[in-house]
Amino acid sequence: MSLMASWAQKKTANWIQYVNPLIGTEKMGHTYPGATVPFGAVQLSPDTDTIPYAVNGKYNPDVYKYCAGYQYTDPTIVGFSHTHFSGTGHSDLGDFLIMPTVGNLQLNPGTAAAPETGYRSRFSHQTEVAEPNYYKVKLEDDNILAELTTTTRVGFHQYTFPKTDQAHIILDLMHGIYNYDDKNAWTYLRIENDTLVTGYRQTIGWARTRTVYFAMTFSKPFVSYGNNDFSAKQPYRGFWGRFDQRHNFPEIAGKQLRAYFNFKTEEGEAIKVKFALSPVSTANALENLRREIPNWNFNQVKQQGQDLWNMELGKVDVKLADKGDMINFYTALYHSFLSPTVYMDVNGDYKGLDQNRHQAKGFTNYTTFSLWDTYRALHPLFNIVQPKRNRDMIQSMLAHQEQSAEHMLPIWSHYANENWCMSGYHSVSVIADAAIKGNVGYDLSKALDACVQTARTNYFDALGEYRRLGYVPEDKRRGISVSTTLEFAYDDWCIAQLAKKLKRNDIYDEFIKRSANWRNVYDSSIGYMRPKLSDGSFRKEFDVLSTNNQGFIEGNAWNFSLYVPHDPKGLINAMGGNERFIPHLDSLFTMHLPDQFFEETEDITRDGIIGNYVHGNEPSHHVAYLYNFTNQPWKTQERVRMILKKQYRPAPDGLGGNDDCGQMSAWYIFSSMGFYPVTPGSDQYQLGSPAVSQATIKLENGKTFSIQAINQSEKNVYVEKVLLNGKPLNRTYLTHTDLMNGGSLVFYMSPSPVTLAKVK
Amino acid sequence: MSLMASWAQKKTANWIQYVNPLIGTEKMGHTYPGATVPFGAVQLSPDTDTIPYAVNGKYNPDVYKYCAGYQYTDPTIVGFSHTHFSGTGHSDLGDFLIMPTVGNLQLNPGTAAAPETGYRSRFSHQTEVAEPNYYKVKLEDDNILAELTTTTRVGFHQYTFPKTDQAHIILDLMHGIYNYDDKNAWTYLRIENDTLVTGYRQTIGWARTRTVYFAMTFSKPFVSYGNNDFSAKQPYRGFWGRFDQRHNFPEIAGKQLRAYFNFKTEEGEAIKVKFALSPVSTANALENLRREIPNWNFNQVKQQGQDLWNMELGKVDVKLADKGDMINFYTALYHSFLSPTVYMDVNGDYKGLDQNRHQAKGFTNYTTFSLWDTYRALHPLFNIVQPKRNRDMIQSMLAHQEQSAEHMLPIWSHYANENWCMSGYHSVSVIADAAIKGNVGYDLSKALDACVQTARTNYFDALGEYRRLGYVPEDKRRGISVSTTLEFAYDDWCIAQLAKKLKRNDIYDEFIKRSANWRNVYDSSIGYMRPKLSDGSFRKEFDVLSTNNQGFIEGNAWNFSLYVPHDPKGLINAMGGNERFIPHLDSLFTMHLPDQFFEETEDITRDGIIGNYVHGNEPSHHVAYLYNFTNQPWKTQERVRMILKKQYRPAPDGLGGNDDCGQMSAWYIFSSMGFYPVTPGSDQYQLGSPAVSQATIKLENGKTFSIQAINQSEKNVYVEKVLLNGKPLNRTYLTHTDLMNGGSLVFYMSPSPVTLAKVK
Repeated sequence: MSLMASWAQKKTANWIQYVNPLIGTEKMGHTYPGATVPFGAVQLSPDTDTIPYAVNGKYNPDVYKYCAGYQYTDPTIVGFSHTHFSGTGHSDLGDFLIMPTVGNLQLNPGTAAAPETGYRSRFSHQTEVAEPNYYKVKLEDDNILAELTTTTRVGFHQYTFPKTDQAHIILDLMHGIYNYDDKNAWTYLRIENDTLVTGYRQTIGWARTRTVYFAMTFSKPFVSYGNNDFSAKQPYRGFWGRFDQRHNFPEIAGKQLRAYFNFKTEEGEAIKVKFALSPVSTANALENLRREIPNWNFNQVKQQGQDLWNMELGKVDVKLADKGDMINFYTALYHSFLSPTVYMDVNGDYKGLDQNRHQAKGFTNYTTFSLWDTYRALHPLFNIVQPKRNRDMIQSMLAHQEQSAEHMLPIWSHYANENWCMSGYHSVSVIADAAIKGNVGYDLSKALDACVQTARTNYFDALGEYRRLGYVPEDKRRGISVSTTLEFAYDDWCIAQLAKKLKRNDIYDEFIKRSANWRNVYDSSIGYMRPKLSDGSFRKEFDVLSTNNQGFIEGNAWNFSLYVPHDPKGLINAMGGNERFIPHLDSLFTMHLPDQFFEETEDITRDGIIGNYVHGNEPSHHVAYLYNFTNQPWKTQERVRMILKKQYRPAPDGLGGNDDCGQMSAWYIFSSMGFYPVTPGSDQYQLGSPAVSQATIKLENGKTFSIQAINQSEKNVYVEKVLLNGKPLNRTYLTHTDLMNGGSLVFYMSPSPVTLAKVK
Repeated sequence: MSLMASWAQKKTANWIQYVNPLIGTEKMGHTYPGATVPFGAVQLSPDTDTIPYAVNGKYNPDVYKYCAGYQYTDPTIVGFSHTHFSGTGHSDLGDFLIMPTVGNLQLNPGTAAAPETGYRSRFSHQTEVAEPNYYKVKLEDDNILAELTTTTRVGFHQYTFPKTDQAHIILDLMHGIYNYDDKNAWTYLRIENDTLVTGYRQTIGWARTRTVYFAMTFSKPFVSYGNNDFSAKQPYRGFWGRFDQRHNFPEIAGKQLRAYFNFKTEEGEAIKVKFALSPVSTANALENLRREIPNWNFNQVKQQGQDLWNMELGKVDVKLADKGDMINFYTALYHSFLSPTVYMDVNGDYKGLDQNRHQAKGFTNYTTFSLWDTYRALHPLFNIVQPKRNRDMIQSMLAHQEQSAEHMLPIWSHYANENWCMSGYHSVSVIADAAIKGNVGYDLSKALDACVQTARTNYFDALGEYRRLGYVPEDKRRGISVSTTLEFAYDDWCIAQLAKKLKRNDIYDEFIKRSANWRNVYDSSIGYMRPKLSDGSFRKEFDVLSTNNQGFIEGNAWNFSLYVPHDPKGLINAMGGNERFIPHLDSLFTMHLPDQFFEETEDITRDGIIGNYVHGNEPSHHVAYLYNFTNQPWKTQERVRMILKKQYRPAPDGLGGNDDCGQMSAWYIFSSMGFYPVTPGSDQYQLGSPAVSQATIKLENGKTFSIQAINQSEKNVYVEKVLLNGKPLNRTYLTHTDLMNGGSLVFYMSPSPVTLAKVK
């Protein structure tokens, strides 16, 4: 009640009205529309189809659309599952699908073409409501109103039924995202009493072995229950065969289970379900359930979660002339605050990489680290508006390093598993960026040791050859040797910055040297980064446009050759200085690409591309800001405003690429406020062109930093001058200290390019 | 050292010299010859073959010989695994097989016919030494001396190698007893450093889901290591594919793994391995390892375990004229002290039936409850010589009941799993027997509630029909309806005794009435127990000799009709009184059985049979004592001495049937001392004919009870008179109080039958 009272007082501060969780649910965004609280461990969201990961052992490309379980154009909902990634380009999860039905019991999901053949239902966007921590939809086939809300660890379902003697709530333990026949290593179900069920699901997949425990309670006793085991091959049963395990038997285990619970309902009667998760045990799941939601007040739980969202979103108070831009902004901020997710029970228990139970002492443990994406802008954003959480995330990464068998910092980790996705070891960027910016609350020199040990793991990704040769030879990491080299070089620079701060000179020398390795794959004869073989020669056959096996992960030489975030000046000079570099960069945004490019390119559609500039994937996110390092920073201003407009729209298909756990959104937040962290690990933010007319950032240190754009308009995309705390700013960048001290940044906008003070 | 010193002082008391762990390892005994401590959690023993549980989905009867992993007549040893049942008639376990080899690495076990095709080795009984907590054998193919010893939770291996650059220690995670393709749900291996490895094995089998965690340490660093994954179908690998996971990679997971560790050895160099188990986690396994064996002193660990054995075996000090009988006796006592086994870490953690981690407060948690067998004589024996452990076992059973989804007491449980093996709910007999005999240290009325709840579980084994009709209808439990009825009736009598002791009259009335249900399946027209249908009529087609689907589990009507342990007098009267009953019983021991009988009979061979009397399986174990309830108790004396001689021999094939976790052996201990608990749940032991000339039982209460047989000889099998503490005993039974008060029981033996005082 107190929370609802406090809410009443700040009714005005209603930021969630500008959040549309449906943005990005069509095509490539891979976001989910369901209910969750900031960084919540439960993401309770509708899944609109169940596409197998592989058909006859062959990868099924259609599965890609369903990384978050939901595609806006789909006509049916299969059910509501409790775990989802936001915006990823590969997937897992979709645990514990719940679906209410009436009439004859159906234990198969059926097909989108013929939903009546299964338990799924048609739905319409007319009856669909998606808000932060609240989702509502009418399940048309059975005339059931479904509503969802959550706390950090508990999903709260409310299903309003018609009058019937045949109401069912189905719990599908087979359902999953990126699912295949033998993804379930084992699942287990205990009916503790007629309102309480516990169990777990153990899967083998992107997370090599992941077990999620649950406790589920109903607002009303079920009158009967049962299940079916769909395993093609039944395991040894022995004396279990003496039981009728399908009907009203309290303990069920197997690999392919679907259970159901039967009720009688009056017209308009709501049956509520609380479903708690734990990484550790069913006992902890039950404790999470009882401590987070002690009552059955759905609206109160919804309200409390929305209050949390208003508090988090209110940290940045912006004014944008266009309502659509307001929605873009606060939905981007919302998407930025979904991941990483809490991975810890209310009692502090969590499962470590060693698969043992650990206690998080003095920090909240997080998981879902999509670091190849999020080190770029999301974690830097956290250093401004979520510094405490970012410190806890770093402590979670350090625990990961301590507990993992490889003793490496996370590459891409979720649910006590390392999935090794993508390249580089960008944890070091997140750690260095926080350290350089003074956001520290843990043992920094231990953190440095963890970085160094990670960067010296020879068996990882040809690191041994990289350390010996100064680059990753194409013959050792076929197809991605150049991008791997460039990413290592940047990460090494981050380690050097941390070492310098700690005065660990030997380490500084080692890694500052390594950070220059980008030069070893630059072919000055053609002006591009290029695959190099172990013998030191560049690979002969080479296509600078193709993204197919040319040495770059998810990108082509054109885009990826611009990836030296720690030494843009060095890159520009290597590429012939401003005179040659600027037209080269101009053409990136203006050239026309052959269709073949799009057929070959993973993870990119036309929506995500401007010319040959690929905003839909991360490696280019800093590129528009490179003009700041030339004598034409006004082109950065122009490009940024164009990208903001073209790549982000307040519609389900409004995202040009995967949101990638908030990285795409974080780019929007920064750029629309007028600055961007081109080089995480430094304290600088390059200035662009603000889209906001006004923004106020409320800092955790109690200070505020405000941004103002005078003469702001669609046409006035150029910056005439910038005042920091009333004084002219004679540089193209802002420092983190400037921000943390609080104060004001005033941009004077203009319709025509202006040459800012030369960059030193 | 203190233990070794104390050992020095009581060198004389060397009981282990009379123990031969090889007894029962040939044919049907199903015992294992390896190393273990009393009730130890680790049973480190050689496995001589790897027979699949099923071939092309069809049960493979050959697997039955390998319930304990070892068959004496086999020519090869596959390796040494850490968990084994003793004497069971169904199986599981065989976890974590270790095998040392030299020369070219072989990662398959090979065949017995051609051991050179795999890592297994020939061996000879000439080089084999089997003692309590010590096993030694020469592995001939590779000239390696293998020695094994243990503590409660740690296996200690010592392998003496020849000089070689190619010494290997193989860790086979695929190997198992009652193994099949997909028995492994998952296995996991972490190389923590060059002497420490941790991991777990999760299986699906007799225990539906069983996970055993381990920590393994070497006395010397390995120079390299690796593994192979033999899974027919590889799980999703994703970015793990970037690693060479087969060679020197520290983290391995899969379903079919065999790992190896490479060493260089000098001639005669011993490599030692400590291998700790935990039911809960690898962290606990490591703690178990470090706390139980802090050093590398193999001989000291062996000595400490053998001291424990001498302490336990010394509780009964007997004299038998024949050395072979001394070996029979102390090997039987040894086999009686193997199960149930400790299931708890040194820190008190154990896994409960709810699969959660629990702390055992005030008791030691045990598992491996083969209750259909062991309630008869093993647990009664514990009430005399292991009262503290028996109380802890009962507390473990009560925890099981509390934590299981069915809230039933264990039927046959192991490793936090109920496997439901066999019939009845004989936990209640164990609890009532301890309670009636005053061996109590837990909440008795809670225990009674657990018994009652178990006995009212309608969905269990036609209990609903049994409660409604007063018998289990043959049409509901086809093939075993009669034996199930008889066992329920006896168990119900036990519950009544407990209720009476607690003055819970309503419960007493309910269950004393149920205890008479044996009468409902007795067909007086033929004088046998007989299958009865739901309509109250007896089944027409019926064969009193056949064990095949006649209504009795593992027995025929002839033997099982005599199973009314709680009312022998009532049974005898129903069967026509002494005049008809005695000749009937005589013929049981003398009649000739057709061959067909043996073909049909599960779990019984000719070795286990005398006439039609089946000693090789449990249901008849009380039968020889039934003469005590007639006017010819001397026939009990005669039969018992004959059975002792025929069914127990000091040789590998010396056991006539499965030892069944010590039940066969406990029968021997009691009977050779001259008394037997025909009716667990009463305080009476029926007197037979002692085989010992002298026996002294050292009780935990500090008192001693001595037995003496005057004029003892092979011929003098009859009892002329019995003096208890010098006074004539005018009854055919001894009471538990008589025993616990301490004192002396003197038998006067005679070559000719003597009629003892009439039975009241």
